[in-house]
Formats: sequence, structure tokens, C-alpha cells
Amino acid sequence: MSDAVTIEVGLGDRAYQIRIGSGLIRDAGSHISGLRPGARAAIVTDENVAAAHLETLTQSLAEKSISSAPIVLPAGEKTKSYAMLERVVEGLIGARLERNDLVIAFGGGVIGDLAGFAAGIARRGMPFVQMPTSLLAQVDSSVGGKTGINSPQGKNLVGLFNQPKLVLADTDALDTLPRREFRAGYAEVAKYGLIDRPDFFAWLEKNWQEVFAGGAARTEAIAQSCRAKADVVARDEFETGDRALLNLGHTFGHALEAATSYDSARLVHGEGVAIGMALAHHFSARMNLASPDAAARVEAHLQTVGLPWRMAEIPGELPPAEKLMEYITQDKKVSRGALTFILTRGIGQSFIARDVPQSEVLAFLRENHPTVS
Amino acid sequence: MSDAVTIEVGLGDRAYQIRIGSGLIRDAGSHISGLRPGARAAIVTDENVAAAHLETLTQSLAEKSISSAPIVLPAGEKTKSYAMLERVVEGLIGARLERNDLVIAFGGGVIGDLAGFAAGIARRGMPFVQMPTSLLAQVDSSVGGKTGINSPQGKNLVGLFNQPKLVLADTDALDTLPRREFRAGYAEVAKYGLIDRPDFFAWLEKNWQEVFAGGAARTEAIAQSCRAKADVVARDEFETGDRALLNLGHTFGHALEAATSYDSARLVHGEGVAIGMALAHHFSARMNLASPDAAARVEAHLQTVGLPWRMAEIPGELPPAEKLMEYITQDKKVSRGALTFILTRGIGQSFIARDVPQSEVLAFLRENHPTVS
Repeated sequence: MSDAVTIEVGLGDRAYQIRIGSGLIRDAGSHISGLRPGARAAIVTDENVAAAHLETLTQSLAEKSISSAPIVLPAGEKTKSYAMLERVVEGLIGARLERNDLVIAFGGGVIGDLAGFAAGIARRGMPFVQMPTSLLAQVDSSVGGKTGINSPQGKNLVGLFNQPKLVLADTDALDTLPRREFRAGYAEVAKYGLIDRPDFFAWLEKNWQEVFAGGAARTEAIAQSCRAKADVVARDEFETGDRALLNLGHTFGHALEAATSYDSARLVHGEGVAIGMALAHHFSARMNLASPDAAARVEAHLQTVGLPWRMAEIPGELPPAEKLMEYITQDKKVSRGALTFILTRGIGQSFIARDVPQSEVLAFLRENHPTVS
Repeated sequence: MSDAVTIEVGLGDRAYQIRIGSGLIRDAGSHISGLRPGARAAIVTDENVAAAHLETLTQSLAEKSISSAPIVLPAGEKTKSYAMLERVVEGLIGARLERNDLVIAFGGGVIGDLAGFAAGIARRGMPFVQMPTSLLAQVDSSVGGKTGINSPQGKNLVGLFNQPKLVLADTDALDTLPRREFRAGYAEVAKYGLIDRPDFFAWLEKNWQEVFAGGAARTEAIAQSCRAKADVVARDEFETGDRALLNLGHTFGHALEAATSYDSARLVHGEGVAIGMALAHHFSARMNLASPDAAARVEAHLQTVGLPWRMAEIPGELPPAEKLMEYITQDKKVSRGALTFILTRGIGQSFIARDVPQSEVLAFLRENHPTVS
């Protein structure tokens, strides 16, 4: 086995390990064979990941006598749909997997969310393993058990809290990622610094080039991110409190994703989060909660690494502020009509703000809208 | 409030009460208003139940200031589909219910299974209340947290373990049931006697007419059934052991339902279970596990109450034994290729038999097939 960094996610009888390191796809059989001796597996993946890595994974499993059936889906956010959920569930049943067999979610955030959800409902629940192959999935979506699909009425409105039995994050997989996708995932790495780890954010400001280049700094950034997320999830698995902090940048970000019809040519999730984090810092300054310097520092860093940092960076026209507001109120982080936002008092000082007035958000969106005169 | 019988389902932080009695639809507002103060509700129901009882329920909720949005579906087993699941989930989101609002599953087993599943995945889980209006649902499907839909590949292959916050079983609702449906539900009542309560079965043999007539005997039969089920569920919520006993008659029954394409004109679930229980007793006798007298007694009672008791009672032609066998092996109670059946050593002495040889089952099906010469 490779010498991976291991992080424990402390969730009682749902506890599991995240292993991060080089060569984990090649060694997956060794890591997985102990989980369910004698089990078979289905590998849920997308066409891109299948082309690059499916053979390596299948062979590694076969070496440990784990037979596996592949379920290969189109790549892209549109795959998080009811139709694809049905296809995966029927594929699992059709492969004659039983309740003790394993579902391996092998891909980026879309695959992890979809396959984790499908595993949770096929035969009323089968164990699953997350094998995230994108930076976004390694530092965010594969940890914490949120799984689901998008509703025509909004992103991630349908799904389950369903914890994996194991997460294997092979850092080598990131070398084959398109640059833009790696950068988008980096937005979530920076997020952990901005939530409550100001030293980590400062470290990133200094070392981001090494993180992008790969090697020890990248593994360290991923491990830090997973630790940060695991801490929050262990405190609040079902998002009744603190876990909402992980949504920093996401309320604005989801609205922008919806406003661009989840068209990845225009905006991918991490880019939405990047703009969303910058907006959350600006809005906090506008509400006199934080100094404008914090927002400026966030913007500067996003700009430096090549991430979009304001709505005007999104190619094509955006719907008016009123329509963006509608997307926001349709978002699931609405409690009894009052808006809940993650705001900040400065770098690494985010907090959950309840009862944020809709009128203030709307006014802010109007001021920052690219078509404003 | 009416003086209902209350049964506790002991499941730790997922514990809940089953209340059984007269007038519970009329008094639903009082029972539900304490669960989630300030919550709104969606009522998921079918056209038949809506016509008979929706106004009463809506008004009872309104009296306690619970506003409710109805989601009315076609009646029948075909409603347990992916398409209807999507319709309910989108309906819940479209009604702008939030994660603390309530889903009320108001109908028979189909509605309870479907709405409970939808509640479990809309916004990653909303609390729900079961208000079963059929005997089958009151004694079986609304208790224990199994929710789901049918897959084209088999019944109940997709779903969740999702416990309700409360079950309200209004015995008055049974007065408007078609006689055939009440009888089908009675099969599940008898099942609890056959599993491990021989005295209850003997009591039913004597008092079934009073149970059918209504009043105290009926409430007693429902309460006994719920207690029996709650005991098993509390011991084994996720069906890793004993809970499988509740499947007495269900492996054969599900195969027969599939073989008749879930056409309720030919066979409804409870009727399938009735035939399945008789077959399970016969098969046990054939395997020299039980005396043939037990099977004869089961048959006699089913016949007396007007339930079908052998495959020949199903109108229309059945597929050959080999095809029935295929449906059985597709059933979810298959573990690593070996067949698991609930068999018996006599009345009230059921047990989980693992490694039942497929060849014996097939031979038995051939012998008992109606088209056998």
C-alpha cells in the first residue's frame, strides 16, 4: 500500500476514514477488500474518468478478487438528474448486487453525489466508497455524506445524508484534470481558510503555486481541507447548526449556477463559489460587519489564482437582480421565510447570519449586477 | 381528543407512537400540532381517500393553524413508481415546504410507502406522519419505517428505512374500504399469529367475524398486530436479522404479484401474502419441517374468511414455474445467491431458513402450479 495521509471522520457507528495520497487508484483493491470480504462491486463513473482510470481500478479490484460492474454516465452537472438516478439504481439492481455489496463512486462531485444517493436507495441502502478524482470532490463533496441530485426547481434539493464507508482520494488523479476544473476545486480549499482558519488562508496566499504544481503542498492543502470539513461534519452531521458554515459562498454561488442554467461552459460549481465568497465578503462589508479590506484580500487572491471574483466575469448575460433573488429564496437554506446567509467579520471569521433582510440582499445584487449602469 | 390505544415503537432517537382508534382523522390537528409547532404540512394522498376524507383532515389541521397543501395521486400499486416519486418530491418543493415542515402520508400502503420515501429525500429529509386508511397499512406498512417504490425489476427494490414521527390509525376509515381490500389487509393480521403468536392466530380463528364487523375486536386485532410488528422492528430496525420474519408469505407473494404485473384486478398485495403464507406452510411440510396439519389449518382459515389460499385462485393464466422462480431470485431477500425463506415448524413457529435449495423450491412450484396436469 502507498503511504497515504489518513483522516478519521468521527461519526460513531457511521465513522469512516479518508485516505489521501499518490497511487490510491492503483492500490484500491487492497484498501477496499477489507471492508466487506467477499463482496462484489459496481463502479459508477463518467465517460472522462472511465477513459483515464477505469481499467486501472478494475484491475486493482480484480487482483483482490473483487469483481466489478461498471456503470458509465455522461460527464457534467446535468447528470445529477432524476433520469440518471433511475439509471444508476436500475444498473445496480440489474448487476444483481446485494445489500452487502459495494457501490464505488468514482469521479468528481457529480458522480459522488449521484452514486452516493443511488447507493442509499437501491435495495434500501447499500454500502458505498467515495473515490473522488477531482479536487472539488476530494476536499468537499466526497466528505460528509451529503448526496443528491438537482431538482428542476433548484440545485441539490433532492437527496440524502448518507455516509460512505471509506474515501480514497488519489492525488495523482488531479494531474489529468483540466486546469480550469482544478482551479474551481481550489475555491473550496480557500473556503476552509475563510471560514475559520485564517492561518491556512494566509498559507495559501503564499503557497498556492506549489498547491497547483502538485506534490507535498497539494497533499497538505487537501488534508487540511478534509480535516476542516471532517471537524464540522462530526459536530453537526445533519446540518442543524454549524455545518451551514460550509455553505460560505454557496447561496450566491447556487443562484449564479441556476441563472446560467448549470451550463459548465459559462460557470462551474467552484467558480460560482469563488464569486459567491467574494460577494459574501462584500455584502458583510456593506452590512458593516467586516472591513472592506477583507473583501479586497479575498478578491485579490481569487484573481491571482485565476478564479472569477465578480459576476461580470461570467460570460454571457445574467438575468436581472430580481431573478437572482428568486433563485436565492428557492435555495434550501431558507428557514420559515427568513434568509440565512453565511457572513463574515473578517478573514477566517465566518458566522451564520439568520434573518438577513431580503431587501438588503436585493439592493446589494442590484449594485453589483454587471448590467448596472 | 379521542381515547386511542397508544403503542410505543422503541427506536431510541427515532422512537415514535402509533395511536389507534376512532375519530383520529377528525382529531388529527390536535395530535399533530405538538410535533412541530409552527410547521406547515403537505398531505400526500390518492383520489379515493381524498374524495372520502381530505376535507375532514384539512379542516382538522386548519383548526390548529396548520396550513396544508394537498398532493393527490392516482390510486393503485402503479403509483409506486419513479415518475410519481418525482411528482411528489417536486410537489413538496413547489409547495415551498422547508426542512422542518411535515409530510402527511394519508392513504393505504402505496401512499405510505411513496410519501415516506419522498419525505426522506426532499430537501434531504423532512419529518413525516403516517395516517394509514387501509387495514393493510394500519397493521403493516405504516409501522416500521420501510418506504419505497417498485423497480421495473421487482417490487420495493428502491427506497429507504425512514421512520415516521407519528402514526395515526383511524379505525373509522376502514368502514369505507371495499370488502376485498379489508380482507387483503386481514392476511397481514393473520401473519402475526403465524409468525410467533399461536394464541393470537387461535383467537382470530374464533373471532374473525367480529374483527371484520368492526368495534372493539377490530381495534384489538390492529393493536395486537402493531405491537407484534413494533417488537420486531425495535429488535432489528434495518433487517439484518429477525425482522425478516415479517416477510412470511412475501417471497412467494411478491413473485405472484410480479407474475400478474401488479394488476390489482387479479391480485392485490395482501392476497399475494395469503397465498404465499399457505405456500410457505406447505413447502415447510414438504421439507419435513412441519406437519401438513399446520398448512391445512392455515388454508382452512384463509378460505373461511374469503381469502385466496392457492395459486389456482388467481384469475387468468400464470407464467410457468420457471418464470415464477426467476421472480423469486430477483427478490431482494437473496443473500450471496442462496435463497432465504421464512419457513415454519408449525402454527406460530416461523423461522428464517437460509440456504434453501433453489431446486426444491422449483420442484414445489411445479407441483403446485395450477396448470400442472
